[in-house]
Amino acid sequence: MPEQRDDAQLEMQVGVAKVSKYATSESGDTLEMIERPQGGLSLVLVDGQRSGRAAKLISNLVARKAISLLAEGVRDGAAARAAHDYLRTHRQGQVSATLNIVSLDLVTRTVVISRNSHCPVLVVDKDGLRALAEPSQAIGIYARTKPVITELPVAVNTWVIVFTDGVPDAGRRFGVAFDIMGLVAAFVANGGDSASALADAILTRAVELDQGHPQDDMSVLVLALVPGQRIDNARRLTVRFPLPSS
Amino acid sequence: MPEQRDDAQLEMQVGVAKVSKYATSESGDTLEMIERPQGGLSLVLVDGQRSGRAAKLISNLVARKAISLLAEGVRDGAAARAAHDYLRTHRQGQVSATLNIVSLDLVTRTVVISRNSHCPVLVVDKDGLRALAEPSQAIGIYARTKPVITELPVAVNTWVIVFTDGVPDAGRRFGVAFDIMGLVAAFVANGGDSASALADAILTRAVELDQGHPQDDMSVLVLALVPGQRIDNARRLTVRFPLPSS
Repeated sequence: MPEQRDDAQLEMQVGVAKVSKYATSESGDTLEMIERPQGGLSLVLVDGQRSGRAAKLISNLVARKAISLLAEGVRDGAAARAAHDYLRTHRQGQVSATLNIVSLDLVTRTVVISRNSHCPVLVVDKDGLRALAEPSQAIGIYARTKPVITELPVAVNTWVIVFTDGVPDAGRRFGVAFDIMGLVAAFVANGGDSASALADAILTRAVELDQGHPQDDMSVLVLALVPGQRIDNARRLTVRFPLPSS
Repeated sequence: MPEQRDDAQLEMQVGVAKVSKYATSESGDTLEMIERPQGGLSLVLVDGQRSGRAAKLISNLVARKAISLLAEGVRDGAAARAAHDYLRTHRQGQVSATLNIVSLDLVTRTVVISRNSHCPVLVVDKDGLRALAEPSQAIGIYARTKPVITELPVAVNTWVIVFTDGVPDAGRRFGVAFDIMGLVAAFVANGGDSASALADAILTRAVELDQGHPQDDMSVLVLALVPGQRIDNARRLTVRFPLPSS
């Protein structure tokens, strides 16, 4: 079966790049990752209301709740609902956060995208590039908030691009709009180097548009399914970040 | 204060590379990472007894417990003790696992290394290369097992190298010993490219020594504090792994 043979050649790549708002030491965005107990992995990206330490506490709380449920095998939609209920109870409906969950589910062999955010998620697959932009509520405020969920089959040359609102809002203060769709389309048309290269390209452009001083926390998450590029069957994880001075 | 200025230039790097035992589809080793609520991050590496699915379930259980406690701000030594108690209770003292926790703690500005494993942890710092190899018990079996903890100050050119026993045992079946200390010494003497390059070099050599067919699950985790190499102040995360065929 040739399709299965294609599958065997697939590589999953994740690339994340984050900066905090200019002149704040701490990003209010939190990104966490966990292995799914049945196989695959889940990535959770949360943008806490406001910025700095207060936002960080909120995003950390929400991400931790979602991650701990996903680690126990709870399905993504239920984890997002629970994170909402938890934040709303904990902060009495006074504080909001955006929540995105992107999972590679090896049981269903799908990529599951959960949005609780006004920001679109961009997808590239065999149908081309499109924005997932159905109306979707941030969590923490209203009763019974639920995520908008999209499932994509595992297939080669699938790209999922998620970001917090500091990214599409980049340049706004200077009267310039960020054409993220254009950047992604050009990247993919040029052969698409890697998930981390795309995340870096988007973040770099966003920071440029804010003239080097990000006006908000900015996080970009890219998950890609690409043709397998190494034959050694190893899993690899890399993290790099500058250490704040003491 | 020149020391603080040095600090401002530091970059933290993590590199992880993992393969599963030859002809098993699933590694019994689990590696998870979490942001510490007070700043910094923790990495948890668990090797479950036996291999394949049974080992994976155990290592997943232990890693999840440790990660969820660390995410709540529980100190590393207490998280390791709790993971032990949890596994011993859950599996009635019948199943063991090795547990390593490596944390960059930005409150104490130290690297905290917790060992519950017969495998040494290698450290390179201003005093050179050495093995942390005090007797240390795997978790899950005996009453009151506790970790052996080492704290290193945050300082430039610090390298911490952690691995599961498939790595030092590589080559044994073919009557060859793996001189990991020699490999690390040469790597650092050559200027030390990056944490991921060192993790890859160790794993590649281990797989070679097992003649391309790893005789056990193998995982290598490297945490490095090196001179800052990028000026954009971004945090970056990269994951790559081959997708199992359906």
